[in-house]
Amino acid sequence: VTYSIPFQADCVGNQYFDLAGLLCRDCDSVSQVKSVDGLSCQCRPSYKTTRNFGGPSTTVECEACAAGQVGTVDGWNCIDCETADCLNCNAGDIGEEYSIAGVLQGTKTCTTCDAATLPDSAGIQCERCHESFLAVNNDCTCNTPLVGGLCFGVNEIQAPAQDTFQVSYEALDAPLSSWYYMEYLQAAEAMCRLYQNLTACQMLGNLCVLLHYNPNSLNDACGYFEAIRGASATPLIGDNPDWVVYMPWLKYVADPADEILTEINIPTKFSAEPTSEDSTLKLFVAQYSATGQYRGLGSVRGGVIQLCNDTEKKMNAAYTFATSYSSSCQLKAQDLWNNYETTFFDMYLQYTEGSSTVLYAVPVLLDNYQDDGTFENRQETNTNWQLTRRFFLVDNVSGKTASNTPATVIRYASSIELLVTLQDEAGQTREGKIYPPLLKIQYSELVYENDYDSNTEVTVNFRVTYEMSRDYGENALSTALGILSGVGVVWALVRSNAWRRRAGLIYIDIKTMFKFFFFGLGMLADVFFVCLFGTTLYWLFFFKRQDLVYLVLPHKAQEVSFIWYLSFAFFCKSLDVLHLIVYQCLSDVFLIDWERSRGRVVQSSDPGSNKGSVAPVSIWRTYFVANEWNELQEMRRSSIFFQMSAMLFFLEVIGLKNLTTMDPRSDVYVDPSDYTGDPSRVLRFAVASGIYLLLSLLQWIFFAFIYERFIADSMRNFVDLCSMANISVFVLIDNTFGYYIHGRSVHGFADTDMKEMRDQLKREEDNLCGQRGLLPNSEQQTFEILLPMKFREQYNTILQPLDGVAARIDGTRGRPDAGRNQEAEKSIQAYQTMNRFLAAFLDHGIRDIDYVVKDKLLLEQILDMEFYDPADKGFFFNDGGHAFDNALFHGNESTLQLFELLLFCIVDLMFTNFVLAAIITYIGSAFLLKVRAAGGRANLAKKTLVDERFLI
Amino acid sequence: VTYSIPFQADCVGNQYFDLAGLLCRDCDSVSQVKSVDGLSCQCRPSYKTTRNFGGPSTTVECEACAAGQVGTVDGWNCIDCETADCLNCNAGDIGEEYSIAGVLQGTKTCTTCDAATLPDSAGIQCERCHESFLAVNNDCTCNTPLVGGLCFGVNEIQAPAQDTFQVSYEALDAPLSSWYYMEYLQAAEAMCRLYQNLTACQMLGNLCVLLHYNPNSLNDACGYFEAIRGASATPLIGDNPDWVVYMPWLKYVADPADEILTEINIPTKFSAEPTSEDSTLKLFVAQYSATGQYRGLGSVRGGVIQLCNDTEKKMNAAYTFATSYSSSCQLKAQDLWNNYETTFFDMYLQYTEGSSTVLYAVPVLLDNYQDDGTFENRQETNTNWQLTRRFFLVDNVSGKTASNTPATVIRYASSIELLVTLQDEAGQTREGKIYPPLLKIQYSELVYENDYDSNTEVTVNFRVTYEMSRDYGENALSTALGILSGVGVVWALVRSNAWRRRAGLIYIDIKTMFKFFFFGLGMLADVFFVCLFGTTLYWLFFFKRQDLVYLVLPHKAQEVSFIWYLSFAFFCKSLDVLHLIVYQCLSDVFLIDWERSRGRVVQSSDPGSNKGSVAPVSIWRTYFVANEWNELQEMRRSSIFFQMSAMLFFLEVIGLKNLTTMDPRSDVYVDPSDYTGDPSRVLRFAVASGIYLLLSLLQWIFFAFIYERFIADSMRNFVDLCSMANISVFVLIDNTFGYYIHGRSVHGFADTDMKEMRDQLKREEDNLCGQRGLLPNSEQQTFEILLPMKFREQYNTILQPLDGVAARIDGTRGRPDAGRNQEAEKSIQAYQTMNRFLAAFLDHGIRDIDYVVKDKLLLEQILDMEFYDPADKGFFFNDGGHAFDNALFHGNESTLQLFELLLFCIVDLMFTNFVLAAIITYIGSAFLLKVRAAGGRANLAKKTLVDERFLI
Repeated sequence: VTYSIPFQADCVGNQYFDLAGLLCRDCDSVSQVKSVDGLSCQCRPSYKTTRNFGGPSTTVECEACAAGQVGTVDGWNCIDCETADCLNCNAGDIGEEYSIAGVLQGTKTCTTCDAATLPDSAGIQCERCHESFLAVNNDCTCNTPLVGGLCFGVNEIQAPAQDTFQVSYEALDAPLSSWYYMEYLQAAEAMCRLYQNLTACQMLGNLCVLLHYNPNSLNDACGYFEAIRGASATPLIGDNPDWVVYMPWLKYVADPADEILTEINIPTKFSAEPTSEDSTLKLFVAQYSATGQYRGLGSVRGGVIQLCNDTEKKMNAAYTFATSYSSSCQLKAQDLWNNYETTFFDMYLQYTEGSSTVLYAVPVLLDNYQDDGTFENRQETNTNWQLTRRFFLVDNVSGKTASNTPATVIRYASSIELLVTLQDEAGQTREGKIYPPLLKIQYSELVYENDYDSNTEVTVNFRVTYEMSRDYGENALSTALGILSGVGVVWALVRSNAWRRRAGLIYIDIKTMFKFFFFGLGMLADVFFVCLFGTTLYWLFFFKRQDLVYLVLPHKAQEVSFIWYLSFAFFCKSLDVLHLIVYQCLSDVFLIDWERSRGRVVQSSDPGSNKGSVAPVSIWRTYFVANEWNELQEMRRSSIFFQMSAMLFFLEVIGLKNLTTMDPRSDVYVDPSDYTGDPSRVLRFAVASGIYLLLSLLQWIFFAFIYERFIADSMRNFVDLCSMANISVFVLIDNTFGYYIHGRSVHGFADTDMKEMRDQLKREEDNLCGQRGLLPNSEQQTFEILLPMKFREQYNTILQPLDGVAARIDGTRGRPDAGRNQEAEKSIQAYQTMNRFLAAFLDHGIRDIDYVVKDKLLLEQILDMEFYDPADKGFFFNDGGHAFDNALFHGNESTLQLFELLLFCIVDLMFTNFVLAAIITYIGSAFLLKVRAAGGRANLAKKTLVDERFLI
Repeated sequence: VTYSIPFQADCVGNQYFDLAGLLCRDCDSVSQVKSVDGLSCQCRPSYKTTRNFGGPSTTVECEACAAGQVGTVDGWNCIDCETADCLNCNAGDIGEEYSIAGVLQGTKTCTTCDAATLPDSAGIQCERCHESFLAVNNDCTCNTPLVGGLCFGVNEIQAPAQDTFQVSYEALDAPLSSWYYMEYLQAAEAMCRLYQNLTACQMLGNLCVLLHYNPNSLNDACGYFEAIRGASATPLIGDNPDWVVYMPWLKYVADPADEILTEINIPTKFSAEPTSEDSTLKLFVAQYSATGQYRGLGSVRGGVIQLCNDTEKKMNAAYTFATSYSSSCQLKAQDLWNNYETTFFDMYLQYTEGSSTVLYAVPVLLDNYQDDGTFENRQETNTNWQLTRRFFLVDNVSGKTASNTPATVIRYASSIELLVTLQDEAGQTREGKIYPPLLKIQYSELVYENDYDSNTEVTVNFRVTYEMSRDYGENALSTALGILSGVGVVWALVRSNAWRRRAGLIYIDIKTMFKFFFFGLGMLADVFFVCLFGTTLYWLFFFKRQDLVYLVLPHKAQEVSFIWYLSFAFFCKSLDVLHLIVYQCLSDVFLIDWERSRGRVVQSSDPGSNKGSVAPVSIWRTYFVANEWNELQEMRRSSIFFQMSAMLFFLEVIGLKNLTTMDPRSDVYVDPSDYTGDPSRVLRFAVASGIYLLLSLLQWIFFAFIYERFIADSMRNFVDLCSMANISVFVLIDNTFGYYIHGRSVHGFADTDMKEMRDQLKREEDNLCGQRGLLPNSEQQTFEILLPMKFREQYNTILQPLDGVAARIDGTRGRPDAGRNQEAEKSIQAYQTMNRFLAAFLDHGIRDIDYVVKDKLLLEQILDMEFYDPADKGFFFNDGGHAFDNALFHGNESTLQLFELLLFCIVDLMFTNFVLAAIITYIGSAFLLKVRAAGGRANLAKKTLVDERFLI
């Protein structure tokens, strides 16, 4: 069995298309021809049908008429002919076949039609001709002008001027003589002017709209329209002088644009609650065909004015209040020529006031409008705008140069934007109320010879945007930024002054200025972030949670200042972090070994007189502690991995990123069939920052209260290690300020074997020995220290011969060098001297340079500065055990996290991609850590004289 | 100026709608009424129009007719009345107003129509009545049955049986008496049977389709249809006995379904190349209205048979060859009732053969088809399926019980699936050729009283799926899996035998079985992964790159075995990794301190006779080395962060995930307006694995050739450290197999001060001392070791008293314990003994237990086993410097990375979310590392007797 049939699209010759078999079949070649629809056969004109039940050709029976007869037009009878072939009746005559009662006449006679009638298309009956003929001549002849198929009196028609039928296109150099205007303009004008024909008036208006409301001629459609509209006697619709009865309302002439656009007559309080009645813009359009026929008044929903086709649900999302909508697509030129009917729209906003429903006219801002060559509607200020009413989407009629040729040029609405502005009253937005919406339209053109055959694709877009006449709290933001920046600068001053004292400087010098600069940058970054976060969080919460809409988001162009502020904050924070790294990597560190030699070593075999050599103190404890300190330098108090992956989890997996679209919807799950709005930068910032801060808080709680208490506190472990190794850590982060970890072993010595170490540990566990603190009977091992300048001078004196030695040793490693040995010697010397000096200082063993241990005042703690002047004595301030964190990344979490947060947001701002932002932030953070680790390692090797090979 | 107008939707009373002002205006109350369209006024019947140019009411002039006159029907004249009011002519009479020539008659006369005519709707002219009347009676009366507006002879109509007008619905308990059938069935049947009326035959067919082709009655539409079709004389279309001329083809009766579905008559070679002619399925449908009118033959493109509306581009994507398409949406019940016209479709596939274009009939599998109560088309095998031809999308006519009520029940096509099967010939797919497609349709029903008012939302879906009759290479995959698994098991046997020797076991015991089990799991995981990756990569490349389509992807149901295989591989790999961790965390480690005491320590003040005490050897070097070894345990040779973020970067940011959709498109960028197919699991696995492996390779190259050479090689550094610290590392990973790092200082001692250390380093740099190797004058410091069982026994003997000591010490730390001191003592004792024992062994100082250093044979290296039996002597095999990595994660990268890869893919398989997969994989990997670190640390503390507090 064959299941295929030939594909026969067009039946040729005398074949009809068999709709059951989808085949072409022959009509009887003698008696039949195919019917007009091509789906059946009918009898030829000289035959009469004797049987036709709508069956195939074979069931249609035809009978040839007798000689001298023809078939009637309906095909059911034969009739004698009066003339030779029954066809050549005179013009205005019919060939009568049946009487009015359906009785077949004996002969088909030529009969003259009544004066008021003309033959119908089949030529068998007379029909009344158009009233305009009768009005002029009282019969169906027209000796006076016949335009557009209508007949007018001698002086009733406007004589065309040179520009009457011309349409200007931007795409053409010279205006085009339009067949469409030639055909219809005069008739429409006359019908409208003389008889107030409703359709003709609409058509005249349309012809003016197609000229882009050209205001500069008296003899074109717009000139004619204005002449009729302006005639003194014409009554108005309501009190609107721009809208006269029976004519379309085309332009706003009575009021200036700025007044029209700030009318506050729309009482609807629009809501963001999806279930509310007033959560959509109820826009209606009255539609008219190009020739003026009324096509009804209906909602714009369902994509009536959207050229981009999409699902109805998505297209209707454009009218959900407070949803910034934007769609864009490509249309094919040939579709624009063939598949769009030119239709005109008058737009209204429907609202209910009390029990009555009202339509409020929506003004149109036609971008292409020209007055004497200037594009008035492209001006920035709206005072000179010419608002209009009627618009179209595609015009493929005005460019025709003949009735049956396609238009030489077509126009299409390449950009449509509905701009909705929220009302404000003395700076206070009136909740949910709006000014009249404004429809901004821009037309583009395509030229047949360039674009039709190549089927050019053009982009059209449709947008709905919302604005507030307020400045989006920008003033408030600026004010907050100003005030807080001032406070920040003052604080930076205080901080830099505190630093000056710590650096031991008496006067404010260039270094202090630098410090002030960097402190200032850090503060400004904080201030900017706080303000931006506050503002955007306000937007997020109040935009997403509003019932009556009183807040709309800034659109892309208005986000510029936000972007600048954020970029500035990021820039400042970057410099701040850079400063932190350099600052920490230049600090002075020294590991004080308290171990003394156990005495002199002698061999059993030595004679008693041999005093032996001094037993060396093993350096390995120092290596161990330095190595651990080096590891602490790379340590963070938060997990950047956790931070980033949790961000991605919440944003991408849970879907919080769906909160950042420019619509008031606050669902985390978005149905793919729903319209998804463009992302809003400010919302993305708010959501990302919010989650980031929450996660930071969570991490802080975890690390501070769980991890460090119950799992592992690296800082505490390090202090323990120091105590066991009998080594103190002395860090000078500024010239005279720093941190001290007292690691002197309570057992006096630590450089011993495993058994001894175990014993020591056990003794401490059993509380059989003294406490580890610096002061007798105290546990306090860690201190902030502020030292007199004299100390620093001494310190520098010891280090002086060493300046650059370690570096040089490093640089020359492996190469035999004359001076190298000597330098190494010097450095060892300096190390020993420094060790002795610091040990003596801590043991109060140095005259003139002494210290006291005390608690910091509360205010000192809060301000992170010292009130006492260490002129003669240094101060050791008891701390909470963690102060020395500040010399490490570990104690500067907030700065680093803020940097990472800003980096995340900046990257997202650039690429609108959270995944990429997370990856780059992680890389950035890891890079910082590596830099800090490398710098810190080099610094540690240099300052503690521990070879870098042991810092692994 | 007021810019609002009242909203007037319906004009009431004698008002017309002013289309210019969108207002209701009054018609003249005396002379006018509103026109039919409501947009203007016209004169009342008793008036004649004297002026009407289509203007507003005021411009329409009416003139009352004189007494006894009425206005003509066309309104332009008044005419005298013959009867009292000119209305009551007899039935079949007209009131004549004008002659056929348009001349107004003097009086409106009642005139009887000719026998073959009836009055028109206005009653002013006679028109010919339907042929069926004339056929029966030769005039326009019908005394015989009048059905559906047509007249038939006495015996020409089928007398209805009980079930003739009944339609059964699944939603209703009892069949429904359908108004639609009552109205149309008899007339359609009679017209089709008697006159072969083409439309009537189509309608009869439609009525049968609406019964779901019910084959069980002779007196319903299907019974009638079959009777006419089966009449002996009816000619066929082509050689198809199911398709008789002039009637629709409804069912496939001639051939069984399995033959129809494996016809190979479609010659088109379909292509996946988008530019090719044959890259789309050219499906056509012939459309018929419910009453049988032909609505044309056209392409299905543009969503003709898709109930889910979407953009045309997306809807047309359904017909792109090899694109698995699926769309689903919700429709509202009221729309189904009101906005869909019941239309019938016959589907064809168009193809070109030579110069002729052919339509190939596409069979329909109607899910709801019942034969005697059994759903034959729901059977698994297709031999008994009843294939049909015609289908509809929505049926809202058959359920009507009266002409003007909505249908009681409606049906809609809730699921439509077009199944395209690729041809195969003796197991070999013929490139690009297909069997006839099959359209599977399932209808659901809605009941008016339940669903209309609540406007129930129903889900409909439309799918296009592709199948191969081949088993998707599953046989090949199974075979490969079988063979390779066999090889894997053999290899596991070899490995476990090698292990047995290393463990010093002579017989195969339960432990060896366990080892074999775990080795086997690991091998199976590798084998499964390799096979799956190979298969899916094959699919990816050949599906995405094919020109002529010879491969389609398995659809969801066919992915089951893939999922099982992958899950099994993951399960095996997980156990393998677990085994690795436990294995490594139980290894024996000992740090041999080569340092000897420097002698006896005496104080300067001591008398010469005081021999002093033995100078202790500091334990800190051991602590340092142990600490570093502990850190090495946490080290990986790849960055999981890099791996995951680069994965996300390529998949999500660059967009490689767009390759994983079930269409042959291979673009990384997907236009949002394009259709995005469902993700394919196998493609996701292939793409993710492919990128993962590439990135792993990249990382390996980076680490092996760049990082470790030029930046930092932790393993090398550790070996250096050992040498400087004068400490050797002795690792026994199995009973008698392990690794040895020779760290004996070339300077003889290392426990010294900074000066000495510097000197030592310098001497080595200047090549002034011996080489570090174990053998004299060699550099070889690292070895694989295989020791005799005697050694192990000795080793165990030393450790025996210690069993559990370290653990107990740990457990009791801080609590005074009677036995504790003693145990600590024991452990120190053991430590010292062990140190001495191992040092002596390495110095060849122990009789009976000795070793030789040699190179491993190439085959030994490749197979990772030893051929020699260390019965009397141990072997130290020179290695490449990195063999001891194998005791760490660092040397087991491939196992770990494969585990991570499988974890990534498994998570993605479950959640279809690469971001989540990356996060979870990172967490999993970090968790493994933590477990390894914690276990390793505890083990290290226990075995080397270094207190855990120093392992930080």
